[in-house]
Amino acid sequence: MNGAESLARTLVSGGVDVCFANPGTSEMHFVGALDRVPGIRCVLGLFEGVVTGAADGYARMAEKPAATLLHLGPGLANGLANLHNAQRARTPMVNIVGDHATYHRQYDAPLTSDVVGTARPYSHWVRSTETAREVARDAADAILAARTAPGAIATLILPANTAWEECDGPAAVGPVPLPPQVPASLLSKSARMCRRGARCGLILSGPALRGHGLRLAGRISAATGVRLLSSYSVARVERGADRVIVEPIPYPIDTAMNFLKEFDALILVGAAAPVAFFAYPGKPSVLTPERCEIFTAAQPHEDIVAALQVLAEQVGADAHTSPVAEFNSGGAATGTSSAAALGQSIAALMPEQAILVDESVTSGAAILQMTVRARRHDLLKNVGGSIGFAMPAAVGAAIACPDRKVICLQGDGSAMYTLQALWSQVREQLNVTNVVFANRSYAVLHRELQNVGAGVAGARALSMLDIGNPSLDWCALARGMGMESTRATDMAGFNRAFEASAKSSSPHLIEVVM
Amino acid sequence: MNGAESLARTLVSGGVDVCFANPGTSEMHFVGALDRVPGIRCVLGLFEGVVTGAADGYARMAEKPAATLLHLGPGLANGLANLHNAQRARTPMVNIVGDHATYHRQYDAPLTSDVVGTARPYSHWVRSTETAREVARDAADAILAARTAPGAIATLILPANTAWEECDGPAAVGPVPLPPQVPASLLSKSARMCRRGARCGLILSGPALRGHGLRLAGRISAATGVRLLSSYSVARVERGADRVIVEPIPYPIDTAMNFLKEFDALILVGAAAPVAFFAYPGKPSVLTPERCEIFTAAQPHEDIVAALQVLAEQVGADAHTSPVAEFNSGGAATGTSSAAALGQSIAALMPEQAILVDESVTSGAAILQMTVRARRHDLLKNVGGSIGFAMPAAVGAAIACPDRKVICLQGDGSAMYTLQALWSQVREQLNVTNVVFANRSYAVLHRELQNVGAGVAGARALSMLDIGNPSLDWCALARGMGMESTRATDMAGFNRAFEASAKSSSPHLIEVVM
Repeated sequence: MNGAESLARTLVSGGVDVCFANPGTSEMHFVGALDRVPGIRCVLGLFEGVVTGAADGYARMAEKPAATLLHLGPGLANGLANLHNAQRARTPMVNIVGDHATYHRQYDAPLTSDVVGTARPYSHWVRSTETAREVARDAADAILAARTAPGAIATLILPANTAWEECDGPAAVGPVPLPPQVPASLLSKSARMCRRGARCGLILSGPALRGHGLRLAGRISAATGVRLLSSYSVARVERGADRVIVEPIPYPIDTAMNFLKEFDALILVGAAAPVAFFAYPGKPSVLTPERCEIFTAAQPHEDIVAALQVLAEQVGADAHTSPVAEFNSGGAATGTSSAAALGQSIAALMPEQAILVDESVTSGAAILQMTVRARRHDLLKNVGGSIGFAMPAAVGAAIACPDRKVICLQGDGSAMYTLQALWSQVREQLNVTNVVFANRSYAVLHRELQNVGAGVAGARALSMLDIGNPSLDWCALARGMGMESTRATDMAGFNRAFEASAKSSSPHLIEVVM
Repeated sequence: MNGAESLARTLVSGGVDVCFANPGTSEMHFVGALDRVPGIRCVLGLFEGVVTGAADGYARMAEKPAATLLHLGPGLANGLANLHNAQRARTPMVNIVGDHATYHRQYDAPLTSDVVGTARPYSHWVRSTETAREVARDAADAILAARTAPGAIATLILPANTAWEECDGPAAVGPVPLPPQVPASLLSKSARMCRRGARCGLILSGPALRGHGLRLAGRISAATGVRLLSSYSVARVERGADRVIVEPIPYPIDTAMNFLKEFDALILVGAAAPVAFFAYPGKPSVLTPERCEIFTAAQPHEDIVAALQVLAEQVGADAHTSPVAEFNSGGAATGTSSAAALGQSIAALMPEQAILVDESVTSGAAILQMTVRARRHDLLKNVGGSIGFAMPAAVGAAIACPDRKVICLQGDGSAMYTLQALWSQVREQLNVTNVVFANRSYAVLHRELQNVGAGVAGARALSMLDIGNPSLDWCALARGMGMESTRATDMAGFNRAFEASAKSSSPHLIEVVM
């Protein structure tokens, strides 16, 4: 057996059965091994940002890592922006990056690159394998690193000759260590803080935002009056009818500070303390009032659900039922299109158990506010803030959950970074409705230009924020990648297109002219 | 004056008057400074790979660096693949990368990243500025580093507060050091080697491939019989009628070894010794026969044209005229489309002083062979081998040379990595004809799958090389970005479209169905 086959067999036995790939010459033996090893699905992306973004979306929903297959330093480099987002979301991922054969590196051929150096800033775990016999063990270590809570980006660099040289066969992945328990002292302190009621907030993250964790948080809130919060962007949250409502801390700095000034205490449950997304002249980085006590009840790698269980017992929450959202659709909106109207229609028309993948940027806040009381759904957001996340993540989410509708909410500016994702959606016939909000502008930057006090902008500066000259035609772009599409210029048109797409399981794109 | 304005003024005074940009919040003050500082043209790209590729194409033709403006680590990461190509081409470039304000970094906000670590593997020079007062000096140092022979990628990281805080004004760029002269002893040894005639090759690079350098090489060849060679991919070479002919060393390993086995001696004039692009099992990395003596006459940073001048004198080349290519067009080809037919038509129909930007991959060898005796032109190739180079480089070349027709020869697989370049071509109304060779396959990988001996590939492996399901519609993709396009299914259709586009100065795309 050669190294490539040992890799494929180790991946499959370690539970990694989807590989998002954009391979080149140095990965041809890994591609060749695919036919010999059953049990792994390979999905081609035409750009590496699609590959890593898809692996992120997949793992958030599947709760286990996918593999990626990338070509040398530059191929990995093209995937780094979405690795950044995945790293910030604590998504588990196993990147396999080909490199020149070990004996070939010394000749500095044109594609020679510092693959380890490229991987390091965007990976929690990096290793470069030196012989075929080490491939399987290193791959098993990578899978273990990726799966260890809270999840890690593991990047394994495989020189081409480690693929074609002989090895000893696959390796078994060791048992994934259980997350450590939170010390009881931290939880009794948290319980005391919860007695402050509504002037205290629990900032939830990771498994606290879904399933049993979220229900426990809801009971703690019901028993004590603490408010349940999350950062503005979370990796995954369960929302909609019959779910506990979590309030996201707003994104714009002034709104966020105004929101947070009501709190005397914040308890971090796997979350970080709220800070400004960017620095702005004359404004603080820390968004909480000085009097606010911030306390870490559980760190991201700890057993967050168990911590909530203990906390719930300590505050006597067992006797309480958590209040949940009631389904409330005012029906689809009519008239001209706006973020609020689109939110209302999406909330009314989205099917049960949809997966919302959101990168709608300036349209997002209004839309997500409207969907709090929609049918049950999961929401995946861009945690790292590097745009070009949503359409690739929708690929991965749809592969993880083939029986659920994925709704990708996408600003037009951010959509352009990884538009090649549409092709993979068509190739794999994924159940995705892409809604592109075509305001033809980097609208968020207009706001930011004011926020940073960069002065009155003239025509040349403003032209750097304007993507409307020429106008992007998203229906033509979709058609170019084989996808059916509809242009909606008002709410009636949007409702028709969205309802039809919700009922179909084929990929579709709706361009909403804002 | 704030740091942003000092940067803009330092760039302009240092001769950097074009900035390719994809800015975000942390760069808003630099964007704001553009209106206050005349003399710098800003060109927006909708993806950072377009930005860095355009800066590469620009500098190759303008013979001076452009600036880029990029957003934090992930924005830079998206531009790294084309930085790799530029680095390998020794293209001068000044990257300005925004970062979080120095005091904001400690809070680990979502977009916090290791910008220096991201830049390092793909930059010759990296610095992170810490105060506004250092911005101008650091920018001047970056420009000097970029302009020092043979050209460097200089990456300057500017925390947001260095843009808005007060400074002391712009800085002057120091004089660019002259490239060192080659020691005479190396050239007399080279002159002796040249006496071996046709069994000796001069491998030319950099300034030896154009203008006076190329003519000197031609006279040396005329006097001694040495053959003039280059690596398969060069940053820029002057070709066509009345130009000295340089033979590229073929790309496929077996063809290359067969070509090189005729040589007893190779003299490197700013070039590297020929090595295999990739490693293949059972095949060598070094492509020259064992008996072949390889000698470095001039290193890339040395004065290559002066070295050729001395060498020409030593071999008595002054009495010789260099043989040059005669214009020879057999007229446009007819019938069905093939790489050779397309080469013949392009050679017949391309206008005087066109700039060919080539990333046609599997179609390239035949096309470039046909254009050796076309009208005078420059040829820019992908030196680093990371695909997604040509359409962005065409943006930059067209901005550097607005009175010349740029012809971008582009494979469909590689085109998808940075297709956003078409939008910038339309926005700036650039004189570019994009020819996309739509074979709907990563065709080069079919060949490579065999070359690496990965065994008989089954359906799953082959599907990783197939980009024809769904078929890309390049006319629709062009229309999506506002570009006029034509689909050619045979040579008559191609000739009509190419001739019309050659006469127009508007950007156009021709999809050639192969």
